[in-house]
Amino acid sequence: MRQVKIGLVGCGTVGGGFLDILHKHHDDFMQHAGVDLVLHKATTRTLSKLEKCGVPKECIVESYHEIIDDPNIDMVVELVGGTGVATDVILDALNAGKHVVTANKAIMATRGQELFHAADEHGVEIAFEASVGGGIPIIQPLKHALISNEISAVLGIVNGTTNYMLTEMEKGLDYEDVLKKAQELGYAEADPTADVEGYDAAAKIAILASIAFNSRVLQSDVYTEGITSIKPDDFAHAAEMGYTIKLLAIAHKVDGQIDVRVHPTMIPAQHQLANVNGVYNAIYVVGDAVGDCMFFGEGAGAGAAASAVMGDVIEVARHITSNSGITVGCTCTDNLEIREIGKLETKFYLRIVADDKPGVLASVSKVFAAYGVSIRSMIQPSVADGETAELIFVTHTAKDSDFETALAEIEKLDCVQEIGTMIRVEEE
Amino acid sequence: MRQVKIGLVGCGTVGGGFLDILHKHHDDFMQHAGVDLVLHKATTRTLSKLEKCGVPKECIVESYHEIIDDPNIDMVVELVGGTGVATDVILDALNAGKHVVTANKAIMATRGQELFHAADEHGVEIAFEASVGGGIPIIQPLKHALISNEISAVLGIVNGTTNYMLTEMEKGLDYEDVLKKAQELGYAEADPTADVEGYDAAAKIAILASIAFNSRVLQSDVYTEGITSIKPDDFAHAAEMGYTIKLLAIAHKVDGQIDVRVHPTMIPAQHQLANVNGVYNAIYVVGDAVGDCMFFGEGAGAGAAASAVMGDVIEVARHITSNSGITVGCTCTDNLEIREIGKLETKFYLRIVADDKPGVLASVSKVFAAYGVSIRSMIQPSVADGETAELIFVTHTAKDSDFETALAEIEKLDCVQEIGTMIRVEEE
Repeated sequence: MRQVKIGLVGCGTVGGGFLDILHKHHDDFMQHAGVDLVLHKATTRTLSKLEKCGVPKECIVESYHEIIDDPNIDMVVELVGGTGVATDVILDALNAGKHVVTANKAIMATRGQELFHAADEHGVEIAFEASVGGGIPIIQPLKHALISNEISAVLGIVNGTTNYMLTEMEKGLDYEDVLKKAQELGYAEADPTADVEGYDAAAKIAILASIAFNSRVLQSDVYTEGITSIKPDDFAHAAEMGYTIKLLAIAHKVDGQIDVRVHPTMIPAQHQLANVNGVYNAIYVVGDAVGDCMFFGEGAGAGAAASAVMGDVIEVARHITSNSGITVGCTCTDNLEIREIGKLETKFYLRIVADDKPGVLASVSKVFAAYGVSIRSMIQPSVADGETAELIFVTHTAKDSDFETALAEIEKLDCVQEIGTMIRVEEE
Repeated sequence: MRQVKIGLVGCGTVGGGFLDILHKHHDDFMQHAGVDLVLHKATTRTLSKLEKCGVPKECIVESYHEIIDDPNIDMVVELVGGTGVATDVILDALNAGKHVVTANKAIMATRGQELFHAADEHGVEIAFEASVGGGIPIIQPLKHALISNEISAVLGIVNGTTNYMLTEMEKGLDYEDVLKKAQELGYAEADPTADVEGYDAAAKIAILASIAFNSRVLQSDVYTEGITSIKPDDFAHAAEMGYTIKLLAIAHKVDGQIDVRVHPTMIPAQHQLANVNGVYNAIYVVGDAVGDCMFFGEGAGAGAAASAVMGDVIEVARHITSNSGITVGCTCTDNLEIREIGKLETKFYLRIVADDKPGVLASVSKVFAAYGVSIRSMIQPSVADGETAELIFVTHTAKDSDFETALAEIEKLDCVQEIGTMIRVEEE
């Protein structure tokens, strides 16, 4: 059996997990998948990490260029992360005619087209299952088992950190306390911006939407809101109305355009995604033939991500070993427009803090009516102090831009002290 | 682009769905997947069905032999079902050097080895994603994205009929009423045996276990119990203890042996599988790297199954079009023993109907103790008549054979009127 020689760049937690699997299962992969994987060279910023992971000294090199320049290496596994040197590693590898496996969502969501162009030009593959949803198979299913479907929607809980935080907030804890707990547990980073502001999820839904709709979606195309304005009370109000709140990454195909966004979302409590709690991830896909389906699993962690990376490595190695060539390259064959958020038609949850006196509801309702926003339900929980009132609205379907304009006017009303939380509602 | 010519045998609901997709999306498949699929010939028992599905008259043939004998046909799609003529269709097609796509669980679960042998000998593929879980991608993920994992467990709700029935029974309805309702809705057949006795699920878990553990498992290897003895009260008792009841198809790798079975199973109410209701299916997979993951979707219906069939057709067509050869054939490289049910170690739920007098619990406990079965909890709901008592036990982990022997002795006790329901408990 022909050996498939791997060059590894990057040895953080996922790289460590990858080396663990290779060490443990090399012989199984020979027997079960018919591939003989060999780590030929490896490098990372701190070379001692590679030794600690059991990489023989003779395989450790100081620069990734030694990997790119080695004609014996078939495949480069890029696990550096970020958009700095990782970009050079991937592009140099592809341009040197080496297959690439990466977990890098940031690059795939911003420079996918360029990478696929380079891969195509040099007749090699680029695989990135681990870039979304950790170990959950989702990119392969979209490109293969579900390929017969016209996909109309992809809805995902794709950020474990914020899902853990929202799950804890649902129990009544405050955002700040939950963030601290998440940081202590290692679920959130010291600077949690990328997670809590939704940027991480935005990169992932850009990747999924590109594949699902056969049209390039960039991270910058994704309308993005984070979870920082959600209050524990919002969960209580949501529960009262039969909903829960998740940070959803959402992509729809609507009238030939792509509606793609990340924001806190109210979903019915009985929706499959409502039961995805803690650091787990899930991606819900709607296709014209398959109907609704969902892929659930661990969205983070060394083992889960390494499972996906190694799955890609074995897949590419099978193609190399059987000399089969590439059957699926870039799938972005179409060029659909991105639909701006203002055109979105959806329902809204809104919490307003106002003076506790008659006429508030009338004033607010009047503004809504003027912009064609119809109210489906309103609750007014009792507030202890007797001076402020909380009004919770859920609207019927309205245009996002109309709702936002109405909201700006409501904020100016004398009787309104504060606009609390606004959460879009997804019923599908 | 080279045309890929398809011969279709069988045109029931799935065949109709398949033709719908082909008609609707032929051009999309050219653009998005790079394959030009053409229905070249088709046959089925009642030929008028094909015309009704829009198949041109010149494509309709009277016998499947005309498809096998046509050297232009690349691929045979077998949607006859059952183990009669379908077996000949598949074997003849493979032996004629044609690729085969099938939804036939019964054949795959009984004669898989023979089929793979024929496919291998003639250098063709056999694909069967639709044989398990309708449209849910599960066979491809096990063979590809999850291939880096040593799978330790596969737990599935793989029969929509019984899952619908159990979901309704949980609301308090009797088995007979629910079965009637399921038949009226078209979810259950006039003869519901294959579903309610667990045979359908047994075929499916045989297929999944074969792939997950790289070792051939036959339907006859699967210990199988159906749902006919479950009572609505069992759901109430289960709920009281924090569980629900599902017909699970279960496969574990234990000490190098395969434990594979289908039976009603108590699972914790917060388990992901506990939220899979109605006719939906889900398959839960545990791997050493990926951890826990789950695949959820519509397990039946023309569209869902046809989605999987067409997914396979496109996959095979991509290989034909790119002339890439076959990278994954039979994955049953190992030869693991099947573990007999008696060796199973699990917890048990047991409902006993006994005389309402002192000493019953003592008598029953004594028998359990004699066989090393330790009781974790017991509840005794009040029964109106004053003459009979119901005792509900949940045991600690015990050996299945010991439990069964104890049960046989308990049944002989004078104070015991009837052994009610016995349900194995799965906590994982």
